[in-house]
Amino acid sequence: MPTDVPQPSFVLVRPQMGENIGGAARAMWNFGLDRMRIVEPRDGWPNQRAVAMASGAGRLLDHAGLYDSVAEALDDCSFVFATTARGRGLTKPIYSPEKAMELAREKIAAGEKVAVMFGPERAGLENEDVARANAIITVPVNPEFFSLNLAQCVLLTAYEWRRQSVEIEHERVELVKTDWASAIEVEKLAEHYEDRLGEAGFFFPPEKAESMKVNLRNLWSRMRMTRADVQMFHGIMRQMVRWKNRQD
Amino acid sequence: MPTDVPQPSFVLVRPQMGENIGGAARAMWNFGLDRMRIVEPRDGWPNQRAVAMASGAGRLLDHAGLYDSVAEALDDCSFVFATTARGRGLTKPIYSPEKAMELAREKIAAGEKVAVMFGPERAGLENEDVARANAIITVPVNPEFFSLNLAQCVLLTAYEWRRQSVEIEHERVELVKTDWASAIEVEKLAEHYEDRLGEAGFFFPPEKAESMKVNLRNLWSRMRMTRADVQMFHGIMRQMVRWKNRQD
Repeated sequence: MPTDVPQPSFVLVRPQMGENIGGAARAMWNFGLDRMRIVEPRDGWPNQRAVAMASGAGRLLDHAGLYDSVAEALDDCSFVFATTARGRGLTKPIYSPEKAMELAREKIAAGEKVAVMFGPERAGLENEDVARANAIITVPVNPEFFSLNLAQCVLLTAYEWRRQSVEIEHERVELVKTDWASAIEVEKLAEHYEDRLGEAGFFFPPEKAESMKVNLRNLWSRMRMTRADVQMFHGIMRQMVRWKNRQD
Repeated sequence: MPTDVPQPSFVLVRPQMGENIGGAARAMWNFGLDRMRIVEPRDGWPNQRAVAMASGAGRLLDHAGLYDSVAEALDDCSFVFATTARGRGLTKPIYSPEKAMELAREKIAAGEKVAVMFGPERAGLENEDVARANAIITVPVNPEFFSLNLAQCVLLTAYEWRRQSVEIEHERVELVKTDWASAIEVEKLAEHYEDRLGEAGFFFPPEKAESMKVNLRNLWSRMRMTRADVQMFHGIMRQMVRWKNRQD
């Protein structure tokens, strides 16, 4: 069963290679999209190469809608995007994937049905297909080089959908095994080093000793250490002292 | 020659298939990145399959640095990201591609050298490799499904770099062939329809006529029409009148 998450449908128009249909399904499902529509696939339907390539996303192919024409595939949609690599001389707004998926989110939230069309591998959508769209999506690539395949276009659009529709966690520190050192533990470590390094004659010449100690304290407090880190530093110093004592 | 645009280096660690190295080069160059480093490629170097797959981005392979170890590849870098699909139980910040490339931009602007590591196809980076990184990048995929290949990981990261580093045009309307209708042209059109539709008995019953006219005016002004659109509407109405006259 498809998920019940409101989302745009991705419409593959006259796709050629089964592998690319499977790759597109995988790209979509990576970002939680599972509504695929397929118009006139060159090699018929179902397609075993598509199934093989889709692997874990095969469910999308099972539930994909198959259509004889672009018009039928878009029948129930109130807003349609066409992905194209270049302008078409048509009077139509052209959006970045980011802006397009932001609009898609707004429209879907307002109850609209949104579709995104992707053209066949070699030549992309025909102007006749693009004319059926309300707006164009163009990926902001290097002006000197455009070489995105079908699954990659689907991937970037699906990625932007997820970025726009799900609260993305932009930053976290894994808490597994993380047991931050407390201030007193860092303090004890600083003292340990200060004492041993003092005995070792590290703080030299004497008039520089104070500022060297301050710098060292600064260094410890700048590092965010776990208890394990602190223990490791204690161990290093103890070992150096043991080694020194063996040399005597 | 590589471009002189400041940018992160992308480091492919022990890549297996030549095709994926070529695909990664293409993915990078789509978004204007051309600094690739390769550590211990399984099938040696140079690799003809990589060259064949890279097509227009072959230049990146010609200039790619080849290294015997991750340590050597990262030698001159002051900040290193590792891309991984999952947490590693290491105490290290984990960023979305978006946040990571924002940080990369800031660090590069401040003169730092930044690298992003990508692991081998099958298993990804070893924990030993990840331990050399200052931070982790994890793509915010569907928690139920992760299936991004090497070139796709490179693609999404490169896309985010471009999003963060270049002013993206999020919205435009192509001006090719676009010649907006002036207010007077729209007014003439409205009058044309009002007159003919009046003759045709469209505004009925009489007590509704005014509000029907207002609604029609509203419709014309809501549509943003080109001169060609206006001419087409004039043509439609003229043709309907001709057709009606032939029927008489």
